[in-house]
Amino acid sequence: MLRRVRKLHNLFIIRSPEDKRLLRAVRNITGITPVQLDLYHLAVRHSSTARENNKGIRESNERLEYLGDAVLGTVIADYLFKKYPFKDEGFLTEIRSRLVNRESLNVLGRKVGIDEVLSFDSRHQGRFSHKSLYGDALEALIGAVYLDQGYRKSQKFILNKLILPYFDIEEVVRMNPNFKSTLIEWSQKENKVLEFRIIDVKHHGNHREFTACVYIDEEEYGTGFGFSKKKAEQDAALKTCELLKLI
Amino acid sequence: MLRRVRKLHNLFIIRSPEDKRLLRAVRNITGITPVQLDLYHLAVRHSSTARENNKGIRESNERLEYLGDAVLGTVIADYLFKKYPFKDEGFLTEIRSRLVNRESLNVLGRKVGIDEVLSFDSRHQGRFSHKSLYGDALEALIGAVYLDQGYRKSQKFILNKLILPYFDIEEVVRMNPNFKSTLIEWSQKENKVLEFRIIDVKHHGNHREFTACVYIDEEEYGTGFGFSKKKAEQDAALKTCELLKLI
Repeated sequence: MLRRVRKLHNLFIIRSPEDKRLLRAVRNITGITPVQLDLYHLAVRHSSTARENNKGIRESNERLEYLGDAVLGTVIADYLFKKYPFKDEGFLTEIRSRLVNRESLNVLGRKVGIDEVLSFDSRHQGRFSHKSLYGDALEALIGAVYLDQGYRKSQKFILNKLILPYFDIEEVVRMNPNFKSTLIEWSQKENKVLEFRIIDVKHHGNHREFTACVYIDEEEYGTGFGFSKKKAEQDAALKTCELLKLI
Repeated sequence: MLRRVRKLHNLFIIRSPEDKRLLRAVRNITGITPVQLDLYHLAVRHSSTARENNKGIRESNERLEYLGDAVLGTVIADYLFKKYPFKDEGFLTEIRSRLVNRESLNVLGRKVGIDEVLSFDSRHQGRFSHKSLYGDALEALIGAVYLDQGYRKSQKFILNKLILPYFDIEEVVRMNPNFKSTLIEWSQKENKVLEFRIIDVKHHGNHREFTACVYIDEEEYGTGFGFSKKKAEQDAALKTCELLKLI
């Protein structure tokens, strides 16, 4: 009832250009006409531009992100549960984390155009660029849709506007991205001494780029690079798997 | 519509004593009259008594547990989000994990009486007793309610039958585990160099807001905020514990 009154009220309200822009963007991204526009303003407010409310609390999209993250997890859990009735919970958990992780959500956030409405302090661009600005805002947007429209509509938004158009789920199931564990399994089976070493760290402004190298029985194999040790090691593992023709 | 037809059909069905017992138990625990009783039979089937279905798959409550875990997380996230409008996402995450964790769910499962309907192989009792049989079954039951009755009813069940009657949330909030010491212990065990740095101080009238950052082996981890150095450090420690999956 309250939602209907608000909807009616929204028809007569005079909007600022900023409101109109956000309204259009939210409609484009979600397919939904927002009722409580304030929630969406908050969803696109990164902590670097947090505003102090009248209680002296700095408000940004972080609380909505926490909520949206949970809603997203449930919707994907439900979807995979029904899509794969004969797969066990280990499979379902693995596929969910391949679909929705920091990196994939960040890419998805950009693809759907959240970068065009996100408010963040560009003086901090360097500091935040390696982080998941867009993925976080996308989760916050899901949180806003959930509060504004309820679970069912957020479920529709997630599946019809995010997951189904942007992910080839069969393809996601086929990939096996953990090359490090592939290599560990292989080394145990073959009785080899496997070692990952970080052999170099380069500083680029606030970032560090790592170089990892795989050694098997003290012999050097693949070398990999990445902005975290883990990524560099995965890259080195991938290259070693290729050298050893394990993939 | 389908749900209504099933409900009507259920009125005329002749139930086995086993069905009747489960029906009564589910009504007692959830306050809901099940429509698809099969889902609830599955929810109380531990993997030690898994049954092979006609596809040759061993069926137990593990898939439903995966689903129920997600639904529970979302319902609690929503509840805390609204109950604490001025608390940040670190607080919300922390309180949620204090409310629903392996141990508390296991105790709760027993309290609501799920042990009376749980089917598990008692020859394995010793093997399973240290595990979270009842908590897992409770999550599976939540998954069954969600599939059978939808999100709204599972939300009502979780809040009105599980959380509000069995938890004193204010009391849960008051307990304050020391994340800084958790982190110090961990760093000593893992042989890491741990450091807390105050990286920023903002002046708000008479108050000062501190920003603390945790460094592990010179790498930046969680960042925390607070109106005292101690609070900012605790917050940074909490976030680092989350990043490292220590809590």
